[in-house]
Amino acid sequence: MWEILGGASEAGDGRACGGRNLRYDCRTLNKRVAILGSTGSIGSSALEVIEHLGEPYRAVALSAHRQGGKLVEQVERCGAVAVALTDDTAGAGAEGKLRARGVKVYRGAAGLAEMVRREDVDIVLAAIVGSAALPAVLATVEAGKTLALASKEALVVAGCLVMPEARRRGVAVLPVDSEHSAVFQAKMCGRVSEIRRVVLTASGGPFRNATRKEIEQATVADAMKHPTWRMGGKITIDSATMFNKALEIIEACWLFDLPPEKVEVVIHPESVVHSMVEFVDGSVVAQLSPPDMRMPIQYALTYPERVEGISRRMDWSKAMGLHFEPPDFERFGALRLAYEAARAGGTMGAVLNGANEAAVGAFMAGRIRFVEISRLVESTMEVHRVQRSPSLDDLFEADRWARERVELLIGSQSAALGASR
Amino acid sequence: MWEILGGASEAGDGRACGGRNLRYDCRTLNKRVAILGSTGSIGSSALEVIEHLGEPYRAVALSAHRQGGKLVEQVERCGAVAVALTDDTAGAGAEGKLRARGVKVYRGAAGLAEMVRREDVDIVLAAIVGSAALPAVLATVEAGKTLALASKEALVVAGCLVMPEARRRGVAVLPVDSEHSAVFQAKMCGRVSEIRRVVLTASGGPFRNATRKEIEQATVADAMKHPTWRMGGKITIDSATMFNKALEIIEACWLFDLPPEKVEVVIHPESVVHSMVEFVDGSVVAQLSPPDMRMPIQYALTYPERVEGISRRMDWSKAMGLHFEPPDFERFGALRLAYEAARAGGTMGAVLNGANEAAVGAFMAGRIRFVEISRLVESTMEVHRVQRSPSLDDLFEADRWARERVELLIGSQSAALGASR
Repeated sequence: MWEILGGASEAGDGRACGGRNLRYDCRTLNKRVAILGSTGSIGSSALEVIEHLGEPYRAVALSAHRQGGKLVEQVERCGAVAVALTDDTAGAGAEGKLRARGVKVYRGAAGLAEMVRREDVDIVLAAIVGSAALPAVLATVEAGKTLALASKEALVVAGCLVMPEARRRGVAVLPVDSEHSAVFQAKMCGRVSEIRRVVLTASGGPFRNATRKEIEQATVADAMKHPTWRMGGKITIDSATMFNKALEIIEACWLFDLPPEKVEVVIHPESVVHSMVEFVDGSVVAQLSPPDMRMPIQYALTYPERVEGISRRMDWSKAMGLHFEPPDFERFGALRLAYEAARAGGTMGAVLNGANEAAVGAFMAGRIRFVEISRLVESTMEVHRVQRSPSLDDLFEADRWARERVELLIGSQSAALGASR
Repeated sequence: MWEILGGASEAGDGRACGGRNLRYDCRTLNKRVAILGSTGSIGSSALEVIEHLGEPYRAVALSAHRQGGKLVEQVERCGAVAVALTDDTAGAGAEGKLRARGVKVYRGAAGLAEMVRREDVDIVLAAIVGSAALPAVLATVEAGKTLALASKEALVVAGCLVMPEARRRGVAVLPVDSEHSAVFQAKMCGRVSEIRRVVLTASGGPFRNATRKEIEQATVADAMKHPTWRMGGKITIDSATMFNKALEIIEACWLFDLPPEKVEVVIHPESVVHSMVEFVDGSVVAQLSPPDMRMPIQYALTYPERVEGISRRMDWSKAMGLHFEPPDFERFGALRLAYEAARAGGTMGAVLNGANEAAVGAFMAGRIRFVEISRLVESTMEVHRVQRSPSLDDLFEADRWARERVELLIGSQSAALGASR
């Protein structure tokens, strides 16, 4: 590993890396990637991007929750030297195969956090859905490694811990979400103090034009029909409720150090304009590309450089319309709840996120109706007493409390329904 | 003047200005503006912007061609201390009034160039239509002053002289055209070497959906109906023929040091997206704002800062559609000619521009039909022998030759028509 990189560095410009004993080419060195959640949609795309980029980019560490078989295939293809299996009870067969190949296998959430601290990891791409990524994300920042962040929940839950730590250590937090990547790019056209507002675009999901009644009767299958993006289950349901956008509003506040009133949402069904930044002089800078996650993934890995991409390109030789409309805060309560959580701060982001994860789980299991997701989150937030400067344990406790509260509410509803039968 | 600025500088951060004897606050000092063509559409908007910006921004020098009365009004309002009247035979009454106020009056093209060299001028906003701005533009760059450029003809004709000189002297050339301002902003999101292409947007003008036959029969009044921008006569006709976009293609090549094949045009009827930059990774960055020239004018003056603007802002609370379609190179020959001129280089830009100015003059005087404008330019370019490394005199000679050639062609057409009667 070091030999290969050492060889490549001789051809480089030999800039010295601060804090290391030897002189290396920084551009060559800092491109060994750990992909947390490599078997998911973002993780698989990231592996494609790294394969396309070639040396000095390498996927050196991967992680999966339950898909051990797919993980083995990925390791065979990319030559990763370490993996984490986060579900302690799964993947025993995979573990054996990987160990036989000389691959170091880590186990559980603690193992995942241990893996990101490895010396041969330069960039951690966190692409685990939900708050499970949190300990590893914090470990990444604490270890001073570049964080490419697709797990938006990490900042929604623990932005108050992750971002100050990242700034203190000078760690780059590079957004992988197409919306935040767009803002990250667009804001280069001015200073942070010159930003009047950030406008996050939202496809509007499958229920953009649905009536309140149609939304009341929506099934899991209806909610899974996302118009422009192909993604995992949780995030697709979040797009239908617009909790995905709600999480992004809170994430944008943390990532770009903005108050919630400077973050707006506009519905843009084509998902081509990924987001915009409006500056104080009225100039709006937007980032566009066909909906293809490989673009923001690649940019997070190659930043501050840009290299030839594999994602689809804009085709201006065909007539095209891009449409924008204001979101409906009435039909999509999630957006309103996002601003409330962002204003409340402290543990409220963890509560919104935890309650939503629990409610989405219940919906996907057929236990509650679609519209109940945001009602349950709202009811949970209403009774939460915010802790303003929480520790990591406080955040986990708020998350646990919110999930429990949602279960309680579902239970009491069922009981009420049972009693009324 | 110096006292006021000195006073303001004490409150500033006291950064030293290189090459001056005294320590001043650069931000305070470098904001005294000469507006060349202040009585025109861009010039008047620039005065509005400077009034809005307030100290340290001041319009210290103005120029007009014939509108002496309007110039006097502008001087009374903004307190300019110098003016140039470029038409030697006009404005005698105005000259007397201005001299009585203690305003220094310059005369003719040479006087205009002398005015920009004044020590109390920091920024020159060149907003004179046509190639008349050229000597003053060159004088600006040679004097090491910041050039805010709205006179696109200056680079079309003499980009080969202006831009190398500007780079040699470290002079900032800041585009004021909405399209080039958009590119100038968008390209901040990457490196020049990472630009795959620049996409200039064009409203398409009044004949965007016109048939070839309708264009054949177009009157001056038809051609003056621009769908989105209110501008002067020459530039409005140039929008109808798309020679305006042709000039912008050539200007973009010079401004951003791009080969013509990296500059594309897309029709965008709403004139909200002012232009775009596509990077090698497929990311496209666009700049948007309602069509209002005060936005790019202000940015050129305040760059690299942005301050609160007076131009209209994007309103995302209303539904909106933005449309894009490829341009029709068959109906709009100007675009094809632009690429030919940009590839040929040397004196060909001057020939395209001179021939077009002569042809537009003839069209506005009712001497030729609309469609003949681009035919005359094409016929003139066809017989021009390009000089690759021209001097300023060579460029003026090419311009003169092109205008004469157009007159000759018009004369021979009229003679042919007369003979056939």
